[in-house]
Amino acid sequence: MTDDLNVAKLQRRLAEFAAARNWQQYHTPKNLVAALSVEASELVEIFQWLTPEESARVMDDADSAHRVTDEVADVLAYLLQLCEVLGIDPLAALDAKIDRNERRFPAPGER
Amino acid sequence: MTDDLNVAKLQRRLAEFAAARNWQQYHTPKNLVAALSVEASELVEIFQWLTPEESARVMDDADSAHRVTDEVADVLAYLLQLCEVLGIDPLAALDAKIDRNERRFPAPGER
Amino acid sequence: MTDDLNVAKLQRRLAEFAAARNWQQYHTPKNLVAALSVEASELVEIFQWLTPEESARVMDDADSAHRVTDEVADVLAYLLQLCEVLGIDPLAALDAKIDRNERRFPAPGER
Amino acid sequence: MTDDLNVAKLQRRLAEFAAARNWQQYHTPKNLVAALSVEASELVEIFQWLTPEESARVMDDADSAHRVTDEVADVLAYLLQLCEVLGIDPLAALDAKIDRNERRFPAPGER
Repeated sequence: MTDDLNVAKLQRRLAEFAAARNWQQYHTPKNLVAALSVEASELVEIFQWLTPEESARVMDDADSAHRVTDEVADVLAYLLQLCEVLGIDPLAALDAKIDRNERRFPAPGER
Repeated sequence: MTDDLNVAKLQRRLAEFAAARNWQQYHTPKNLVAALSVEASELVEIFQWLTPEESARVMDDADSAHRVTDEVADVLAYLLQLCEVLGIDPLAALDAKIDRNERRFPAPGER
Repeated sequence: MTDDLNVAKLQRRLAEFAAARNWQQYHTPKNLVAALSVEASELVEIFQWLTPEESARVMDDADSAHRVTDEVADVLAYLLQLCEVLGIDPLAALDAKIDRNERRFPAPGER
Repeated sequence: MTDDLNVAKLQRRLAEFAAARNWQQYHTPKNLVAALSVEASELVEIFQWLTPEESARVMDDADSAHRVTDEVADVLAYLLQLCEVLGIDPLAALDAKIDRNERRFPAPGER
């Protein structure tokens, strides 16, 4: 990851992209979470008939590597737009969640 | 977003968390995309009966604000773990996707 | 399946159940498909960390058999309510779809 | 619904369709629930940017009516195949679930 590519900059690009097309009117939180779940399912679709072993080799094929990367981007796009609309800092949310999970699920050596 | 909280650092925390609990065995790409889609649906569940207007006010209530933030964290957690396992850089993937979308969907003034 | 338990009768029970609680106002097609997808994901959640082999034995445990049966019922409930609201006959829709699929994907011996 | 079109008959058609193409090997419960959730999301995709009012008129347009009916069929197809593989009677499961819900959520006049 280069220094000049970060979450805030991507959120700015996404917001400008939507604004230039007058798409913000569609971006209610309810619609964005639906779109996010649809994109997540498009990821599932790639893997649905694969064995666990085949799923581990999905990046070996250029075509499916491209599809997976593309769907990852779509999931992240809607997640970041949702966070922008709701005023959530996604990295801080995850950092706090890992803290909570460390207390909820102590590692074997820490119990 | 502070400088010391970034995607790579969160991926490291997530990897250490899973390793300490011996959970990596479950983290096939196929399982991670399923978990990602389940978490995305838990976000949808919060919004499923809300009107568009109610959905826009979801952060006004402390309880639902917390639930939404928590589910956002879960979605991001599985997305980052999937990217780690598959060797995908999520921010670069999204940056490239926005480039492609700008060509696919020219803004009105650019047509 | 007994003669006196059919799709139309279940749709009538579901409609009366919703009407008695004044829930029809929430049952827009958009909301019902969201609820359907949430219930489908609750099924996925049961299976998400299982191996294919473990997933084939899910009904051996009384508890998970009950959970799976319960989620199947929820998926069917929203599917039937969606069909009622939209005027779709689900069994006829599936029958027609199998016809189309038989033409799209000829079986080896029929090619 | 005609008398000669019922759930058991459709399950038989689906089983024969899969067997003729040697697809049963892919039909683990885990894969079938993933496919079910993917089809449910394809339904969501049709509705994701619609207002509640637009969603109520989705059958007025022949094209989207066809898409919706087609996705309903796909959801039902995977639900019935899952039930077949797991030995679940979907109509009985729903009937029992409505019974439970009537006890869990008494209607206003019955409280």
